[in-house]
Amino acid sequence: MKIAETPQPPYYAVIFTSIKSDNTKGYDAMSDKMIELVTQQKGFLGFESAFNEIGITVSYWTDEAAILAWKTNVAHQAAQHKGIHQWYTSYAIRVCKVERAYSFGM
Amino acid sequence: MKIAETPQPPYYAVIFTSIKSDNTKGYDAMSDKMIELVTQQKGFLGFESAFNEIGITVSYWTDEAAILAWKTNVAHQAAQHKGIHQWYTSYAIRVCKVERAYSFGM
Repeated sequence: MKIAETPQPPYYAVIFTSIKSDNTKGYDAMSDKMIELVTQQKGFLGFESAFNEIGITVSYWTDEAAILAWKTNVAHQAAQHKGIHQWYTSYAIRVCKVERAYSFGM
Repeated sequence: MKIAETPQPPYYAVIFTSIKSDNTKGYDAMSDKMIELVTQQKGFLGFESAFNEIGITVSYWTDEAAILAWKTNVAHQAAQHKGIHQWYTSYAIRVCKVERAYSFGM
């Protein structure tokens, strides 16, 4: 996992913060599949994730239409359903417009 | 660490993604101090963080003026200086306007 290399703003970020349940059967395989699919999505720019007490995954997108297309992707919707009914006890999703960005050492 | 409880959008998020150096001496104490200080800042709404290969900390704010006030806080600037010169090999900071948000199980 690296810091995502993204273009100059503006672009979009989706911050997905989650707490997993004890029943994570099938999670890793689905996660791998979703990463494979999302990287093929039009407008996908990259993602970053880290997990310990909570999980944080931030995905970056060119625009809101690209985010909506991924949200309604059939395979992704199946994963969302499993997420709500099995893997997560809670999560928050925040859709954001990145207005300014700077970096060091990249 | 919990999922931050934030108001209805719009509000702001600062996504701080980092990779640490091998020299993390003093980091934990400074991190604790910064958390103590930031929670007293006007306009601070909460934060979430997770660390493994990379670190992701997302802080939430009422508006950009609150973010700028924290950025220029003298104690925080000392921490930023140590961050660049000692603790981090690289980082990215993205300032975002949260436009939509939804959650499950909160």
